[in-house]
Amino acid sequence: MTQTSLPRVLVLDDEPLPDLSPLSGRAEVLHSDGGSLPSLLPEADVLLVWNFTTDAVKDAWAGKGPRPGWVHTASAGVDRLLPELADSDVVITNARGVFDQPIAEYVAGLVIAMAKDFRGTWEFQRGHQWRHRETMRVGGTRAVVVGSGGIGRAIGRTLKALGVSVDLVGRRQRDGDEEFGTVWGSDALDGLLPEADWVVCAAPLTPATDGMFHRASFERMKQDAHFINIGRGRHVVTEDLVRALTEGRLRGAALDVLGEEPPAADSPVWDAPGLVLSPHMSGDTIGWRGDLATQFLANFDRWAAGEPLLNVVDKQLGYVPAGG
Amino acid sequence: MTQTSLPRVLVLDDEPLPDLSPLSGRAEVLHSDGGSLPSLLPEADVLLVWNFTTDAVKDAWAGKGPRPGWVHTASAGVDRLLPELADSDVVITNARGVFDQPIAEYVAGLVIAMAKDFRGTWEFQRGHQWRHRETMRVGGTRAVVVGSGGIGRAIGRTLKALGVSVDLVGRRQRDGDEEFGTVWGSDALDGLLPEADWVVCAAPLTPATDGMFHRASFERMKQDAHFINIGRGRHVVTEDLVRALTEGRLRGAALDVLGEEPPAADSPVWDAPGLVLSPHMSGDTIGWRGDLATQFLANFDRWAAGEPLLNVVDKQLGYVPAGG
Repeated sequence: MTQTSLPRVLVLDDEPLPDLSPLSGRAEVLHSDGGSLPSLLPEADVLLVWNFTTDAVKDAWAGKGPRPGWVHTASAGVDRLLPELADSDVVITNARGVFDQPIAEYVAGLVIAMAKDFRGTWEFQRGHQWRHRETMRVGGTRAVVVGSGGIGRAIGRTLKALGVSVDLVGRRQRDGDEEFGTVWGSDALDGLLPEADWVVCAAPLTPATDGMFHRASFERMKQDAHFINIGRGRHVVTEDLVRALTEGRLRGAALDVLGEEPPAADSPVWDAPGLVLSPHMSGDTIGWRGDLATQFLANFDRWAAGEPLLNVVDKQLGYVPAGG
Repeated sequence: MTQTSLPRVLVLDDEPLPDLSPLSGRAEVLHSDGGSLPSLLPEADVLLVWNFTTDAVKDAWAGKGPRPGWVHTASAGVDRLLPELADSDVVITNARGVFDQPIAEYVAGLVIAMAKDFRGTWEFQRGHQWRHRETMRVGGTRAVVVGSGGIGRAIGRTLKALGVSVDLVGRRQRDGDEEFGTVWGSDALDGLLPEADWVVCAAPLTPATDGMFHRASFERMKQDAHFINIGRGRHVVTEDLVRALTEGRLRGAALDVLGEEPPAADSPVWDAPGLVLSPHMSGDTIGWRGDLATQFLANFDRWAAGEPLLNVVDKQLGYVPAGG
């Protein structure tokens, strides 16, 4: 068997590179930093979007020549690929599952940290001040989790384990969910917001969810509620959130994602009152890149054997539908 | 009925005072700031230790005259009463239950906050730095929770819900626990410490547990383990913990309680590396004082009716035994 008979796997690189040594002898691995995508895409049978933080694939896709039949992105969100890849025959798969539990833990931690004002306590410690306060009990509060995929469900499950009552919101209402009873449709969100102590965005970024949290959403929320976004920055109209916090119409917020990452040096998000920023790391636990590579390799085995792939994205919806 | 026929409830005061208005017409309520305890104790049928942060009761108990038959302390720990009250016939009850869920949430929050390095993230935000890091996954880690009373059990239950495997340690080993399988005896602790990612102290302070976490304990723990104390400050030899942290033999620690509260201005605990201090507030959620008063009043109803009291402390053990 000569090397040219091997399928070609093109990797859109990011440091650290994935360990693809299990492909040795089974595939020819090509690398691109993005600039060479237009010339390499026609050569590739498979594209692994290892660097999922750029629009390089979107930008190169409309060029000349054949396209890989399978694109796998090492991310949960596929908003960097759509809609440009939606109209071709390409099969897109994603990293569904890898981030579920890490992000759920992260959100649960944020909820408790905000309820108990950990940041205030640490600031007092920094100033060598011993300042007892009464803080919020988490059990018995209510959360609205927007996004009913693996990540949203894991968040909901974890908050429920802390005694929080959880309303899960998906695209369309469905009843009889084993864990959550009714999963609400997006049209129910406005009615749920005034009841929530915690509003968590874990939705995929699609045209329907772009900018969905804006001034009116924050006005519907309780004054002592908290907002958390671990989805995509563009879910939130950031200036509206900053204004709500600054005017005291919302108690606090945590953003792990922003429309602009990192934010500009003079962005108001750095110092908005009650706003906790983290640098897009909620799902990135030690070993996560290994998990992402392992997940791709397992799907490669299925692809090479002609079996159906796992985590196939519905390119119209913009995410992997339940059971998909 | 004249007022002198009413039972006398003496309250060791603390601000804010409890709402004891339901006792109106049923008891005569006396107040003491501590200094008048020696003269008022002989008059009282019931002592409510509302200020549970002093040794005033211990100090006054040996004086002259009769003593109240029932002492209720609005705290979980009774170390401020023992051993001085152990040899009389007095019945001691405590606030068992009120703090279980609040403290469990607090500890779960500390675990996640330390795993995800929230404090580091907030310090980067304060410096307007966007610094992505990989952090620890909580699910799949191991915790040892020392203390098998209501608080320790609630902590263990909550950590288990986060996917942490939990070893609960009590005084004596007992098998077949419905939630934890085997509850280990204190003699098993040394063997468990090297396996733990998290060691949580939720024990009552008794002669057997005084100073139980010391240099050798911290040396047995893994270098990347974390220690949390929400019990009593005296459970920990603080200088040994500070030394372990300073020498990098332990990743981090959180102390909600200290032997000296607040710590001296020049105490090394303020700035020890990886040490999170909080001012004895882990159980004090909004409304806690109302819950404590309600709990006392419910027990007063039983006392007035001649029924057995709830939460009766075993004065030899120093806590309310399981099922007590």
